[in-house]
Amino acid sequence: MREVAVLGVGQTKFGELWDRSFREIGIEAGLGALVDAKLSSADLGALYLGNMASGSLIDQEHIAPLILDYAGLAGRHLPGVRVEGGDASGGLALHQGYLAVASGLYDYVVVGGAEKLTDVSDEAATQIAASTADHEWEVVFGATLPALWALVARRHMHLHGTLREELAAVSVHAHEMGSKNPNAHYRNRLSIEQVLHAPPIAEPLGMLDCAPFSDGAAAVVLGPLEEAKRHTDTPIRIAASQVACDTMALQHRDDLTSVASTVRAARAAFARARRAPKDVRVVEVHDAYSISALVALEDLGLCEKGAAGKAYASGSFGLDGPLTVNPSGGLKAQGRPFGAVGVAQVVEIVRQLRGEAKDRQVPDASLGLCHDLGGTGATAVVHLLERAG
Amino acid sequence: MREVAVLGVGQTKFGELWDRSFREIGIEAGLGALVDAKLSSADLGALYLGNMASGSLIDQEHIAPLILDYAGLAGRHLPGVRVEGGDASGGLALHQGYLAVASGLYDYVVVGGAEKLTDVSDEAATQIAASTADHEWEVVFGATLPALWALVARRHMHLHGTLREELAAVSVHAHEMGSKNPNAHYRNRLSIEQVLHAPPIAEPLGMLDCAPFSDGAAAVVLGPLEEAKRHTDTPIRIAASQVACDTMALQHRDDLTSVASTVRAARAAFARARRAPKDVRVVEVHDAYSISALVALEDLGLCEKGAAGKAYASGSFGLDGPLTVNPSGGLKAQGRPFGAVGVAQVVEIVRQLRGEAKDRQVPDASLGLCHDLGGTGATAVVHLLERAG
Repeated sequence: MREVAVLGVGQTKFGELWDRSFREIGIEAGLGALVDAKLSSADLGALYLGNMASGSLIDQEHIAPLILDYAGLAGRHLPGVRVEGGDASGGLALHQGYLAVASGLYDYVVVGGAEKLTDVSDEAATQIAASTADHEWEVVFGATLPALWALVARRHMHLHGTLREELAAVSVHAHEMGSKNPNAHYRNRLSIEQVLHAPPIAEPLGMLDCAPFSDGAAAVVLGPLEEAKRHTDTPIRIAASQVACDTMALQHRDDLTSVASTVRAARAAFARARRAPKDVRVVEVHDAYSISALVALEDLGLCEKGAAGKAYASGSFGLDGPLTVNPSGGLKAQGRPFGAVGVAQVVEIVRQLRGEAKDRQVPDASLGLCHDLGGTGATAVVHLLERAG
Repeated sequence: MREVAVLGVGQTKFGELWDRSFREIGIEAGLGALVDAKLSSADLGALYLGNMASGSLIDQEHIAPLILDYAGLAGRHLPGVRVEGGDASGGLALHQGYLAVASGLYDYVVVGGAEKLTDVSDEAATQIAASTADHEWEVVFGATLPALWALVARRHMHLHGTLREELAAVSVHAHEMGSKNPNAHYRNRLSIEQVLHAPPIAEPLGMLDCAPFSDGAAAVVLGPLEEAKRHTDTPIRIAASQVACDTMALQHRDDLTSVASTVRAARAAFARARRAPKDVRVVEVHDAYSISALVALEDLGLCEKGAAGKAYASGSFGLDGPLTVNPSGGLKAQGRPFGAVGVAQVVEIVRQLRGEAKDRQVPDASLGLCHDLGGTGATAVVHLLERAG
């Protein structure tokens, strides 16, 4: 297999983009990544597009050729492939783009993620989000994603002594980081008190424990590492790209407080890259709900089980600590356009490793990790990225 | 890149499977392919699943881990990836499975295609089928897929002298072949008169020019060609796997009677395999509408432009001719479960190349072609398969 590098990144603002269509935001991100990679569309071999639910959200399937078409590339007849794995669709698309370049069949590919979530009602979006859980065993009985994650939170509090205030600290941290990110859906700071007193969604989770529904798109250009120096002074090597799955329904898992797909994907990624969790300086994890972030950090091996909440509460995941978590603001503050999230995580880590993250720059980051999760964890995708220049 | 072979095939009956769920049919096809390949699930590296619209059809996204879970494989934590490209989703999933094995990251993968279409109304299914066309330029103005293909048919009649009776001959041929296929949705024979007098859908296309909405699933097991002899006496080599895209909307094309994505994918496939259209003995083409089959055969280089209708009408595409078309019965008679179609085409060609097609066996087939198309052709996938044993 060839070594694969990220050569360019692009991203739209995340938020309620009511004046912009799905195709517009997809193209903005993709062309931004091409320009950043100093490539023209003539160099491109294929497009991989991560998207969760365009059929339900905008009555449009078949969106990879749609984006190629409206980017003016229909005449090149490039392959376009949509990849879906719930809200892990973006990370999964990146895995496919990685394989496409690694196989040698394609040299340069764009991997995009895009979702237009705010053109439907919050109720419809909640139902669509729940289509990542097990329809026949969970959703028909009324379960929603926040309700399922609330079960995980209760169990985590019971088994590991996690406190309600520690959950709240996840959101406070996310908004602190988001305040430094011009692309973030939310840039306001939050206090623990505000999170604790927000309206309940599914106890113990309140409104401010839940990431918003957002519109947005992100894209990266991948190419062979051996060619990377021709395109950028700061190529970022994909040291590992790993996917793992688990049961759809929570009830079929041995332990509610650990997501086995994350554990497996992370172990495989560290083994492949010959690195250890202690080598990771900066990480973007799935924090669709405050509890999700705690479970992720623990399952990735970045915290001991039960220790993530305490670390959040003590403020140790900031820019100056040994491990910076979600400098983008994460799903909670940067936003949650389902299929775009996993690609946006990579955009953020690439900017951190290049030293281009401005107000939110982590000092001396050479290895970063991206963790993308679908639903309650039936799909997990882990990427390890490292500075190659 | 490693050479890739098809080691096993499996398929459910296609039709109105009202007593069976999406997950049941997906698992039947996948396990059938594993058994046929003499592999156990312990050998598997990943699952690729082609599906067009499970979110709209069964309120369930995230279906690749769903199928792994209900196949009893959640504990193995294998990667599962859903791939979508309109009704070309199955062929596109095969392309991804091919890349996964060719890259060397995975040894054995299952590629499945599944769709459950008959649990919604025909009207809803028609709308969902139209989500493969351009929503903003075609569908909001009332266009459906048969209406768009009817425009193609009118233009083909005008430019190439194609007759209404020649279109009807496509369906007559399909049902003749379907009558020999125990998995086919329709096994009744049709006459030209019956097709001509069926209720109009979008003139010149009538009800019997249009493939049905079906439930169904199909699967293949892929592995490295060099290992294939350990699993089967009749390994089938994937000589080429090519994808190409075109504009979403018909109105943006230079020529309504040719689908550029098919032309490009076919040319690339023949070049890669160092073969020519004349070498193809048996082909499965996209015949969602009678006109689609004529356009496909001409664009693939298997007929001169304007000659496919005459060849159908003269009965030259049967089992004994120089080129056998859609021995499975095609989409028209075997059935049209969107995302399963492209995989079922490969199942049929593999059976033909192995000499296992019984009543519909083509004599001495050593090279076969599969042509999977999304919508009106924004995605085309071409696979060339050859006997390697």
